[in-house]
Amino acid sequence: MKCSVFIATSVDGFIAKEDGSVDWLDTAGNPEADMGDQADMGFNKFIESVDCMIMGRGTLEVLSGFDLTPEQWPYRDARVIALSNTLTQPPDNLKDRVEIYSGNLCELIAGLESEGHSHAYIDGGKTIQSFLDLRLIDEIILTHAPVILGEGIPLFGKTRQSIKLENSKAEAFPNDFVQLHYTVSYQ
Amino acid sequence: MKCSVFIATSVDGFIAKEDGSVDWLDTAGNPEADMGDQADMGFNKFIESVDCMIMGRGTLEVLSGFDLTPEQWPYRDARVIALSNTLTQPPDNLKDRVEIYSGNLCELIAGLESEGHSHAYIDGGKTIQSFLDLRLIDEIILTHAPVILGEGIPLFGKTRQSIKLENSKAEAFPNDFVQLHYTVSYQ
Repeated sequence: MKCSVFIATSVDGFIAKEDGSVDWLDTAGNPEADMGDQADMGFNKFIESVDCMIMGRGTLEVLSGFDLTPEQWPYRDARVIALSNTLTQPPDNLKDRVEIYSGNLCELIAGLESEGHSHAYIDGGKTIQSFLDLRLIDEIILTHAPVILGEGIPLFGKTRQSIKLENSKAEAFPNDFVQLHYTVSYQ
Repeated sequence: MKCSVFIATSVDGFIAKEDGSVDWLDTAGNPEADMGDQADMGFNKFIESVDCMIMGRGTLEVLSGFDLTPEQWPYRDARVIALSNTLTQPPDNLKDRVEIYSGNLCELIAGLESEGHSHAYIDGGKTIQSFLDLRLIDEIILTHAPVILGEGIPLFGKTRQSIKLENSKAEAFPNDFVQLHYTVSYQ
């Protein structure tokens, strides 16, 4: 199973402010820029490439808070799994869209693979850190919003070991966001 | 005075390991890559553009430890000033190359300007943070080594406020390092 991260951070590496807010993402950069056909900064193409998504409990709660209509649902047909040891079922407004999983992550991946899935989108700070420590992340697509936040919740926490990245690509968008693309090499 | 930062960090934003070591920088990326005329990743062109350099005490000590020959000196003809409230003179092996300054940074910049300097290279984690908080940094050139270190000394500490960046540029080098270029907008 290929596991990919597609996430935005500030230039100093935060995914959210200390209070969990991400409103700075909406105001970062130049919103007046002509983005042409890059308005989604590659998100739709990425989502088309995945067939399942694994998110943490925190991301699930943020998603539930958005209370999205079916038209607004961003994950297309991907099977969405939220990790939680305390929830037995998803919030009401996500009941038909999200499964809850509690247990071993390697077994989760093996199970998804045996059910025919081949590319997972891994989302949420703690979840990404857990997958990195289990050496399960293959690809990292990191979009830097053009802002130094100064404090917040870091994407990368303390990892068990340093992790080598390869096959770097970088693209600056007209709105001043920069996207970095790496594959992960576990030696 | 234009003040620029030109510094390398890990992808998770560290300039050094907890113990101050930067040997991971030498082994990061693909050392076998054909870098063509980009072997210095823009450093020489940058150094040619500056006429003075301001570094922290920590950077001074690292520099002194290298015990460079005149041929190895990386800063060309730039006037080099090290900030320290405790040292009265530089280490012996830097005696003719570095001045020590203790005092107000805005006055330092004003003084350098009055002496005809126009572009300063600001180096060292704490020094960069101080200059950012004083809204003195105009340009940030950030080179990401392709590695997640997991822990270390962060480039950006807790800033007084969030800082907006503009005019993003990005370039991936053949050795998998990525260079980001921003100008700083203090609104």
